[in-house]
Amino acid sequence: MNYTEVFKGTAFTSDSSKVVRILTDCLFCIGSDGMIEKIIAPENDEYQALIDIYQGKDNYHCLADGQYFLPGFVDTHVHAPQWAQSGTALDLPLSDWLNTYTFPIESKFSDLHFANEVYEDVVQTLLANGTTTALYFATIHKEASILLAEICAKQGQRGLVGKVVMDDLTQNPSYYRDEDTQTALDETEEFILTVKELSKTTKQGVYPVVTPRFIPSCTDEALKGLGALAAKYDTHIQSHCSESDWAHAFVKERFNKSDAVSLHNFGLLQSKSVMAHCNFLEDEDVELFAETGTAISHCPISNAYFANSVLPVAHFHAKGVDIGLGSDLSGGFSPSMYDNIRQSVMSSRMLEDGVNPALPSTRRGLGHSRITINKAFYFATAGGGESLSLPIGRIEPNYAWDVQVIDTTIKTAKLPIFNDTLHDVFEKIIYQVRPENIREVWVQGQKVHSR
Amino acid sequence: MNYTEVFKGTAFTSDSSKVVRILTDCLFCIGSDGMIEKIIAPENDEYQALIDIYQGKDNYHCLADGQYFLPGFVDTHVHAPQWAQSGTALDLPLSDWLNTYTFPIESKFSDLHFANEVYEDVVQTLLANGTTTALYFATIHKEASILLAEICAKQGQRGLVGKVVMDDLTQNPSYYRDEDTQTALDETEEFILTVKELSKTTKQGVYPVVTPRFIPSCTDEALKGLGALAAKYDTHIQSHCSESDWAHAFVKERFNKSDAVSLHNFGLLQSKSVMAHCNFLEDEDVELFAETGTAISHCPISNAYFANSVLPVAHFHAKGVDIGLGSDLSGGFSPSMYDNIRQSVMSSRMLEDGVNPALPSTRRGLGHSRITINKAFYFATAGGGESLSLPIGRIEPNYAWDVQVIDTTIKTAKLPIFNDTLHDVFEKIIYQVRPENIREVWVQGQKVHSR
Ligand SMILES: [Zn+2]
Ligand SMILES: [Zn+2]
Repeated sequence: MNYTEVFKGTAFTSDSSKVVRILTDCLFCIGSDGMIEKIIAPENDEYQALIDIYQGKDNYHCLADGQYFLPGFVDTHVHAPQWAQSGTALDLPLSDWLNTYTFPIESKFSDLHFANEVYEDVVQTLLANGTTTALYFATIHKEASILLAEICAKQGQRGLVGKVVMDDLTQNPSYYRDEDTQTALDETEEFILTVKELSKTTKQGVYPVVTPRFIPSCTDEALKGLGALAAKYDTHIQSHCSESDWAHAFVKERFNKSDAVSLHNFGLLQSKSVMAHCNFLEDEDVELFAETGTAISHCPISNAYFANSVLPVAHFHAKGVDIGLGSDLSGGFSPSMYDNIRQSVMSSRMLEDGVNPALPSTRRGLGHSRITINKAFYFATAGGGESLSLPIGRIEPNYAWDVQVIDTTIKTAKLPIFNDTLHDVFEKIIYQVRPENIREVWVQGQKVHSR
Repeated sequence: MNYTEVFKGTAFTSDSSKVVRILTDCLFCIGSDGMIEKIIAPENDEYQALIDIYQGKDNYHCLADGQYFLPGFVDTHVHAPQWAQSGTALDLPLSDWLNTYTFPIESKFSDLHFANEVYEDVVQTLLANGTTTALYFATIHKEASILLAEICAKQGQRGLVGKVVMDDLTQNPSYYRDEDTQTALDETEEFILTVKELSKTTKQGVYPVVTPRFIPSCTDEALKGLGALAAKYDTHIQSHCSESDWAHAFVKERFNKSDAVSLHNFGLLQSKSVMAHCNFLEDEDVELFAETGTAISHCPISNAYFANSVLPVAHFHAKGVDIGLGSDLSGGFSPSMYDNIRQSVMSSRMLEDGVNPALPSTRRGLGHSRITINKAFYFATAGGGESLSLPIGRIEPNYAWDVQVIDTTIKTAKLPIFNDTLHDVFEKIIYQVRPENIREVWVQGQKVHSR
C-alpha cells in the first residue's frame, strides 16, 4: 500500500464501445511508473483505511463537487506543422489544398526556430484540450521531426512522431520532397534510432513512427524500404489510405489494386499501423484491416472538407477493425477531440439519414450507420489505445494514469446541469466542455497541464 | 461631434453574403441611442482630431494588438427552456424526443423559480458566446415567458420572445398544453401587451413573438387567431416548418398542402416571420418564402439529429430567401453561433459531395450546395438582422452597436496566428474562437458581458 499518488473522485471510462462505466467516488491508486495499480470503491473495506493514510498529504488529490475524471484523449491523426494554418484555406479540393497551402507551409519547417514556435504551441494546445497521446505527422525534415519528439517529451505528452517520407520526384514539388529514396530511408532510420534513445529517459514514452505520407507521394522502393524499417525496429506505422475519390482512384490506377492491398504488399499493415480516413475501403480491404490489426483513424471534421463522403465507421467497426479518432489538424480545424467526438456522432447520423431532402427517405442514406455518444467517446479514448496497441485510454488497473479533470461548475463556463443523473452529466460533459473546463491534465501519473 | 462612446480598432463585418469587409484601425462613433453614427478611417481628416478629443476619457475604448471587433451574433432559433437538457437524449427521433424528454422538461416552467434559474443561465451563456440578439421559444406558460423577456431586458440582450401555443387536445400531452384555444389566444394577447410595455423602458428592445409551436400541435382556430394577433399588433412570428420527413408528411396529410402554404393561409408568413429548419420546402414553398419575406432559421447542428437531411441553404438563399442561423437549443447542443457557423459550412459540403462512399461520386451529392465561411458568417450576423427586419448584424452606420471584442492572444486560448493576413485572421477567429476569447460583448452601445 505504498502509492505514488492517490486520487479520489468520480470517473467516466469506457467499459465497452457501447457502455460507459461510472466509477462513483472511488480511490485511484497510482504506482511510481505512472500506472493505475488499483481502483477502490467506497464499499470496499480498504477504502476508509486508505483515505486515513493519505488524507492531508501532498500526493492525495480529492476532486471537489462537480469535478470528474475522464481518460485523456488519444488523437490518432495530427499534422503538427499544419497547426500554423489551422482554420484557413479549407475551400479547396485535397490536391490543390496540399500544393497551394500545405506543402509550402510544411517546407518552412527546415527552419528550426519556426518549427520550435509552432510545435511548442501545438503540443501545449492539444494538452490543454485534454489530448494526452497524439500520433503526429511532422515534416520531411529529420531535425525538426526530432525536435517535435523532444517537445512532447519535455511537455509530458505521449507523442508518437513520424518524419514524413515523400520521395517521388515526379509527384512532389521540388521545394518540398526528400532528396532521393536512399536519403529518405537513411534519415528515417536515424530518426527512429534517435527517438528510441530519447524514449529511454521519457517517463510517458515517445515513439518513432514510420510515415510514408501516402502512396501518391512515394516510390515503390521507399514504400518497401519503410515496411522493412518498421519490421526491423518494431515501430508504429502511419499513412493515409483511400481518403478521397481522387486518392483512391490514383492508387488504383498506379497498382491496379486498392490502397489497402498495396500498402499491405509493402509490409505497411500490421497491429501497430494506423491509417487515416479510409473512407473508400472496399469489403476485402476492411477484412485485411481486421486481419492485420491495422486501425483506422477516423477524422470526421476533416472528412467534411476533403473526403467526399462520411466514413461508414459503424459498419467497419462491426467487422472488427480498430477505430481511433483523429483531429487531422489542419484538414480538420479543431484541436479538440470533444469537437471530433461531436462531429463523429453528427456525421454518422447524416450518413444514416442521408443529406439530400429531394430524395425519398428510403434512398437517401445508408442504414445502421449512426453511432452513439458512448461509442464516439470509446473511439476517442479506449479505441485510440487499441489502435496504438498501448495500455492507454481507460481508467482501469494496468492502464496509464492519463486523465483530464473536468470542472462543470466554474463560473465562466458552467455546464447546464440541473438535477441530472450521472449519465446525463457525462453526456453534457461530452457535448458542452470547453478547454476552460479542463482544469488539470495528467499523463503517466504526472501533472502536465493545469489552469 | 458629441458621441456617447468612441471605439478604435479593426473590425470584420459582412459587406455582402460573399465578401467580408475589413475595417482596419477605424474609429467607431456611437450615439446616445446606441446606434453607430459614424465610422472614420485613418486616412480621413477627422481621424486624428477625434482621437485628440476622446483619448484618455472614460468613453474612449482602444483595442490592443490582436483584438478585433465582430458583429454580435443573431441566433434566430433558441428554445430557452431546453437549455436545461442541452446535450442529452439526442439519440431519439423527433417525435419521441419531444414526448419523452422535451415536453416533460418544458412543463416544469410553470414553476417560476426553476424558470428563473434556467433563463438567467441561458441568457448569460448566450451573451458570453457572443449572441447579442436571440429569437426565443419560451413555453406555454405566460408568466414564465414574460420572465424570460424581463431577464433579457435586465441582462441587456435583445430578446425576441414567444409564449408557445400548443392547443390541440388530441395532439399534445395532457400535462403540457394550453387549456383551450381561447385561453391560448387570450394569453398570447396579454403576453404581447406586457412585453410591448416592457420594451418601452428597454434600451436594446425586447419583442413579443407570435409562436405556434408547429402546425401539428395547433388547431386551425388557434393558427388563424395567431395570424390575426400578429397582424393586429405588428409582431414577429416564429414556428417550425417542414423540419423532418415526419413533420412534413404530417401537415400534408392534414391539409393536403405543404407546411409553408398552410402557414401562409393562416396569415403566418410575412416579413417578420422566421421559420425554423424548412429542410423539406418544395419549389413553390421557397418562392412563397421569398415573396412574403419570410426567413428561414437554418439550424445545422440540430438538423444532424432531427431533420433527416441537410438544408439546401445555398439554393434557397440564391432564390431570394432571407437566411438566419440558429442554435436550436437543445435540438442542437451548442449555445455557440461559432459552432453553428462551422457546422453550416461542413454540412453544406457534405450535401454537395454526398455522404455514402458506396455510391459513385456523380450520384452521391447535390451540386453547388457548399457555402463559404464568409456566407455562413453573413447568415449568423447580417442575415439574422434581415431575417428579423432589425438594424443589427453589421458594423455600419445606422446599425446598433452590437459587437464582440475578440482577443486572439490570451495565454490560455491563444489562436494559431503566425504572420497571417487579416483575412486569414478572420478565418482563424471563426474556426478557433472559444468563449474565453470573447472578452467583451456590447449591445446597443452598452457593455453587457466582460471577462
Ligand atoms: Zn492527414
Ligand atoms: Zn425548434
